[in-house]
Amino acid sequence: MRELKVDLGERSYPIYIGSGLLETAGDYVQKHGISIKSPLLVITDEKVAPHYLDTLLTSLETAGYAVASAVVPSGETSKSLKVYEEMMTSAIEAKLDRSSAILALGGGVVGDLAGFVAATYMRGIKFVQIPTTILAHDSSVGGKVAINHPLAKNMIGAFHQPELVLYDVDTLLTLPSREVSAGLAEMVKHGLIRDADFAHWCEENADQLLALDKDALAYGLLKGCAIKAEIVSQDEQENGIRAILNLGHTIGHAIEAIAGYGEFLHGEAISIGMVGSAKLGVMRGADASLHEDTKRMLKAIGLPTSLPEHLSTEDIMSAMMHDKKFREGHMIFIIPTAIGEVTIAKDVRAEDVRLVLEELKKEV
Amino acid sequence: MRELKVDLGERSYPIYIGSGLLETAGDYVQKHGISIKSPLLVITDEKVAPHYLDTLLTSLETAGYAVASAVVPSGETSKSLKVYEEMMTSAIEAKLDRSSAILALGGGVVGDLAGFVAATYMRGIKFVQIPTTILAHDSSVGGKVAINHPLAKNMIGAFHQPELVLYDVDTLLTLPSREVSAGLAEMVKHGLIRDADFAHWCEENADQLLALDKDALAYGLLKGCAIKAEIVSQDEQENGIRAILNLGHTIGHAIEAIAGYGEFLHGEAISIGMVGSAKLGVMRGADASLHEDTKRMLKAIGLPTSLPEHLSTEDIMSAMMHDKKFREGHMIFIIPTAIGEVTIAKDVRAEDVRLVLEELKKEV
Repeated sequence: MRELKVDLGERSYPIYIGSGLLETAGDYVQKHGISIKSPLLVITDEKVAPHYLDTLLTSLETAGYAVASAVVPSGETSKSLKVYEEMMTSAIEAKLDRSSAILALGGGVVGDLAGFVAATYMRGIKFVQIPTTILAHDSSVGGKVAINHPLAKNMIGAFHQPELVLYDVDTLLTLPSREVSAGLAEMVKHGLIRDADFAHWCEENADQLLALDKDALAYGLLKGCAIKAEIVSQDEQENGIRAILNLGHTIGHAIEAIAGYGEFLHGEAISIGMVGSAKLGVMRGADASLHEDTKRMLKAIGLPTSLPEHLSTEDIMSAMMHDKKFREGHMIFIIPTAIGEVTIAKDVRAEDVRLVLEELKKEV
Repeated sequence: MRELKVDLGERSYPIYIGSGLLETAGDYVQKHGISIKSPLLVITDEKVAPHYLDTLLTSLETAGYAVASAVVPSGETSKSLKVYEEMMTSAIEAKLDRSSAILALGGGVVGDLAGFVAATYMRGIKFVQIPTTILAHDSSVGGKVAINHPLAKNMIGAFHQPELVLYDVDTLLTLPSREVSAGLAEMVKHGLIRDADFAHWCEENADQLLALDKDALAYGLLKGCAIKAEIVSQDEQENGIRAILNLGHTIGHAIEAIAGYGEFLHGEAISIGMVGSAKLGVMRGADASLHEDTKRMLKAIGLPTSLPEHLSTEDIMSAMMHDKKFREGHMIFIIPTAIGEVTIAKDVRAEDVRLVLEELKKEV
């Protein structure tokens, strides 16, 4: 079992990564000061529930907790105000009080939704993340929780740190291979922005990662979480440096938005976005190898690196204009300067982005 | 013009109280670091808008801001998830970014709603309170913002401190007299929990306050805000001492809930609740004069001090069981021990509360 501390002063919390953690979740939760006198609510989705919900509930009940659970539909549509209200109803009906905790059992959608419920139920109660996807290694660090507004993704949210994160790698073994690749996209991203050695390690160990080798996964997740934790520790509220974690996300979110949520998995969309950002980097003076290296690393873990012809460049441009990464009218992009290094550019010209999108359609 | 600082470390903010502040709001907003490059959104209600919205918009525009406004129906029904979503839509359509601010022009409902929108739009943007009621002197200090769930009041919310509070006493002159009395209830409450001299001052100056004398109002509001600010400074997240501000609220919220929001104004309901709490205090050993004094002080400012016969005692009891002031199964009450002093009792028996409710129906 590996342990990592996310250092945020009095809001610091540990991440436990290993095998068999779900069976002992009750002990971990109790060890971290969550009162046995107050009821808990587990929020999960209909894909995860059949595999892991009973194990978690049994573990919590054995430790002495009263636990209710709520199962939401799988996928991005559950990050709606409608489902949010339903979860609030579940929390009230389960008689959660100010000492209660909400546990998120699932991927990024469940974590974002359950986290926002925890952030706002009675003005904020405790929150525990139990990620069951690789992608969630990213969202489980940093406390960003949110739901979607019909006009924009993640527009309604909060910063709400968990009490602890329990990462049971056994739960990753049932992931479909497309989701494995998409999840690894954020892992590679952490290497690309901050740690060239780790980016190369991901490429070299791509086969083990794709085969869900537990040791490779545990190391990769720990390293990915550690890089993110280090950045978040410096800038909890995303007023500066934390923005570098958005590498590939400006283009990626726009692709997701116009393709209709679902055609692209988040990791696939940001993979294309990261190739686009590398191209922007080369346009702004980085070595041409940056683009080729980035592309090869992402291909190694089975990710798309080109933009399908049928997505309109102008639609993507227009979707980016709605993105909340526009601050005071300027277009902000995270631009790689080399593998493992990025810069925050606040002066990116729309023409250059349009050109990159066109070139992304010609990638092979 | 009087000024008060709410001391909350890096979240500290000033409250300005005086005449003519609305006309110069733009300057105040700019002086407090709200960027002129980002658009603003004013949220107000249909009763306040005709009197004061144009003055505020003109002042902000003169200072150079781009400003949008949204007008919600007056009253508690606007603290719904539906109106919350509409305000999010307005914020997106007004292209608010992470440097923007939302301004609440109105009473407690508008402040709570607009504050929760500001707390959660893009995970939190800046917030300015411009209260137009006496009651709002209470809600504008302390950062508690919330909307209602169909099953419980203020169940969905956050702690979100404003950048500044602009309290223009001229806006109080159009208040209906019933709302004046109800607003003064929270002012008297601040005296009852922490400052006997101020409680007596409120009683002695009841006529001036009810006549909306500007000097009396400005002094009373400043003093009420100062008492609250001192308590909030000690306990921003309501983990301890801050709970004393809930004097009268456990019974009061239950009365509001079962009578149907609207029959009682909030201040009227907590007035009855404060008399009930004083009775509990006497039952637990305080001098009998505590009950009589409390009642007389509240009557002086025109507030009800007895419970109407038609409200069922059992319904009120049951509504209290849903109230979020129940922590880990115990019944928590703020109990006065003398005028200007309260204690937090965590062991209040349901039978005693039931008895007090019955007696409240016999008060004259």
